[in-house]
Amino acid sequence: MDPLNYTLYINGFMSILAYFAVKNIIPKMSSMFIEAHLFGNDLCKKDQTKKIPESQGVIGGCVYLIILFCFIPIQFSQYKSSSAINPHLSFIDHHLFVQFLAGLLSICCMLFLGFADDVLNLRWRIKLLLPTLASLPLLLVYALTYDNTTIIVPKPLRSLLGFSIDLNLVYYVYLSLLAVFCTNAINILAGINGLETGQSLLICLSIIVYNCVELVRQTDHYHSHVFSLNMMLPFLAVTSALFHHNWYPARIFVGDTFCYFAGMTFAVVGILGHFSKTMLLFFLPQIFNFLYSCPQLFHFLPCPRHRLPKYNQRTDLMEPSTFIIPNDIGGLAKLMLKTLSLLRLIELRESPKSTNQQCSNLTLINLMLVLFGPMHESKLTRLLLIVQFGATLIAFFIRYGLSEIFY
Amino acid sequence: MDPLNYTLYINGFMSILAYFAVKNIIPKMSSMFIEAHLFGNDLCKKDQTKKIPESQGVIGGCVYLIILFCFIPIQFSQYKSSSAINPHLSFIDHHLFVQFLAGLLSICCMLFLGFADDVLNLRWRIKLLLPTLASLPLLLVYALTYDNTTIIVPKPLRSLLGFSIDLNLVYYVYLSLLAVFCTNAINILAGINGLETGQSLLICLSIIVYNCVELVRQTDHYHSHVFSLNMMLPFLAVTSALFHHNWYPARIFVGDTFCYFAGMTFAVVGILGHFSKTMLLFFLPQIFNFLYSCPQLFHFLPCPRHRLPKYNQRTDLMEPSTFIIPNDIGGLAKLMLKTLSLLRLIELRESPKSTNQQCSNLTLINLMLVLFGPMHESKLTRLLLIVQFGATLIAFFIRYGLSEIFY
Repeated sequence: MDPLNYTLYINGFMSILAYFAVKNIIPKMSSMFIEAHLFGNDLCKKDQTKKIPESQGVIGGCVYLIILFCFIPIQFSQYKSSSAINPHLSFIDHHLFVQFLAGLLSICCMLFLGFADDVLNLRWRIKLLLPTLASLPLLLVYALTYDNTTIIVPKPLRSLLGFSIDLNLVYYVYLSLLAVFCTNAINILAGINGLETGQSLLICLSIIVYNCVELVRQTDHYHSHVFSLNMMLPFLAVTSALFHHNWYPARIFVGDTFCYFAGMTFAVVGILGHFSKTMLLFFLPQIFNFLYSCPQLFHFLPCPRHRLPKYNQRTDLMEPSTFIIPNDIGGLAKLMLKTLSLLRLIELRESPKSTNQQCSNLTLINLMLVLFGPMHESKLTRLLLIVQFGATLIAFFIRYGLSEIFY
Repeated sequence: MDPLNYTLYINGFMSILAYFAVKNIIPKMSSMFIEAHLFGNDLCKKDQTKKIPESQGVIGGCVYLIILFCFIPIQFSQYKSSSAINPHLSFIDHHLFVQFLAGLLSICCMLFLGFADDVLNLRWRIKLLLPTLASLPLLLVYALTYDNTTIIVPKPLRSLLGFSIDLNLVYYVYLSLLAVFCTNAINILAGINGLETGQSLLICLSIIVYNCVELVRQTDHYHSHVFSLNMMLPFLAVTSALFHHNWYPARIFVGDTFCYFAGMTFAVVGILGHFSKTMLLFFLPQIFNFLYSCPQLFHFLPCPRHRLPKYNQRTDLMEPSTFIIPNDIGGLAKLMLKTLSLLRLIELRESPKSTNQQCSNLTLINLMLVLFGPMHESKLTRLLLIVQFGATLIAFFIRYGLSEIFY
C-alpha cells in the first residue's frame, strides 16, 4: 500500500478530532470575543439586541493550522534520514513538502488578514492588495516545482491556435487573480445564517468527490489529489463544526476571517493540485453573484454599504432590499437595468417617499427573493445551498461530459 | 561574485523601503486602531488619559512579511527552469528555499497569535502551547534539511563523555523550548517606552554583526549566515521604524504582537542559521530577567498582575513597584528572600498600612531602580539598553574568547 494513502487515514482521524475540538472550544471562548468588542447583532431576528460573537472563523482556522502542523511530520517523517544532503528525499517528496509549507503560509496569512480585517475594518484596496501578496509564495512554489503554463486549446479553435499555447506570465496573472477571486468570492455571497459555512462545506465536499473520482480513475496527477485531500479533510471538519453553530438561528458569526481563510484554502488546493479550472466550476454561484453585482460594485448604479435582504419583523420573512434609482444615471446603467428587468432578474417598484423608482439590490441572495417571493431566513439559506449543489452537478457534467467533446 | 551575496544588496535596499513604509503607515492607521478599542493609556506619564494606539507591531510584522514575500522570487528565480523535476535546483538551494518558507510560516503564525492575544487576552497556557506548535514546521525543516543533533563536548568533560554526543530527540526538545523562550523573553522584559523595540534592535544588530564576522572568517556555514542576514535586515528596518515612534514619550505601543513576532524571528534565524547557542548569549539580560522572576512566576512569592515600576507623579521619576510579603510564606521562599537581600538584589521596606514588609518586584527593570535609585523613564530605558549592549560584548567574548579554551 502506498505510504501516502496510509497517511490519508491518519489525516482523516485527526480531522475527526478537529471537528470535536472546534465544536467544543467555540462556546467556551464566546465571552472572550464579546469582551474584546468582537460581536454583532443579528439584524434578521426579532431580538436584535443579543450580542453574537463575531470572527469565530479564527478558531476554526487555528485548529486547522494546528492539525496540519502536526500532520506534516507524520507525512514526511518517513523520508527523514541522518545526512544533511538527503538522497532518499526524492524530488516528488521534496516538492510535496514545499507545496505543503507554501500552502500553509498563504492560508495562515489570509487567516491573519481576515482577523485583522474583522478587528480593524480595513479599506477595500488593502483587501484586494493583500491576497495578491499572500498568494506570492504559492505562485513561486508553483513556478519552482511544476511550472506548467501550457494550456490545451479546445478542438474548435485548434485550426487557429494550434494544439496548445504556452501562456507563460499570463498564466501566473490568472493564478494570482484566482487567489484574489476565491478569497473575496465567499465574502460577497454572505450575510444570512449558515450561508458562508454552508457554501464552503458544499464546495469542499465537491472537491473531495472530484479528488476521489480522479484517484479511482488513476490519472497521472496522483500526488496532487492526495495533497488536496490532505488539505480538504481537516477543512471539512472545522467547517462542519462552524456550520453547526452558525446554522439558523446562529449562535456565532464566522466573520471575514472565515471567508478569507476558506477562499485561500480552496485557491491553494486548486492551484497546487493543478485543477484550478475544475475548481472554478464549483464556484459558479459565486461567479454569477460577482458578475450580477458588477453594475453596483463598479458604481454604474448606486451601491449601499449593506445589500443584505430586509427583515420584516411583522411576517418574520426576508424581503429583497432595494436602492433608489437616481434621475441622473447614465445610458449604460439604463441599458443594464432594462436588460435585467427584461430577464426578470430585478424587481422594480415605485418608491413610497419619492417619485424615483426602487430596484432590488443586485446580489444572488436578493435574486432568490425576487424570483420566489419573501421567505423565511432558514429557507432562503437552504435554497441558496441547493443552488450551490446544482452548480456542483453542472460542474461535474462539464468536467466529465462536455470537456470530452471539446478536448 | 556569488549570486546570494548579490541578492543581499537587493534585500538591503528593500529593507530601506520597509523602514519608510512602516514609519509613514503608523501615524495614518492610528485612528483605525483606536476605533477598534486597541489602545492603552501610558501609566508612567502625567497625562494618563491620552489614548495611545496598541499592537502597532502588527504593522511592522505585515510589512516585514510582504518584503520577504517579494524577496523570495528575487532570490530563487535564478533557479527556475522549465521542467517539472528540476535538475538545476540543487539540494542546497532547495533547502534554503524550504527554510525560508518554514521560517516565514512560523513567524506569520506568531504574528497572528500575538495580534489575537492583544485583541482577545489569551490565557497563559495557550500562550505557552501555541509557540510550541508554531515552531513545529521549523523543527521539521531542521530535521529534513540538516538534522544535526550532535554536540561537541567541552574539553574538561571529554574524558567522561567522549568527543561528541548525539542528543537526538533531546536536541529537538531544546530547540522547541528555545522557540518558546524567545517568543516570551521579550514580552516579560517590557512595559516602559522604547524597551521592547530597543532591546530587539540591539539583539538584531548583534546577530547581524555576528553573521558578518562569520562571513568574513569564511566558516563552513556560509549559506546559514546569508540566510540569517536576509531575515535580519528587513527586521532591523521595521523595528527601527517602530522604535522611532515607540521611544519616550511613546506615540504608539507595540504590544504582544511585536514581542512574539520579534522573538520568533530570532528563534528562526538561530535555529535554521545553526547558531542557537550563540544567539542565546545575546539573550543574557532576558535569561537573567526570567531566572530572577522565577520566584514570583512560579508563585513561591506573591505575583501581582502587573509588576511595572511605579510612576511618581510629583517627581516625574520611576520607582520600584512592590508586593507585600505575607506571613505564611514557605521556608524556601524565605531562603530566596534572604539570599536576594544579601546579594542586594531586592529592596525590603516597611509597609505603611500593615505590619508586613514590602519587597520590590523581581524584574530586571525594578532591579535597576533598586540599584541606582529612582530615575526618569527615558533614563531607565537607556540604562536597560546599555545592559543589553553589555550582554552583547560578553556574548562575543564568550563566543570568540572563552569557547576557544573549552573547544
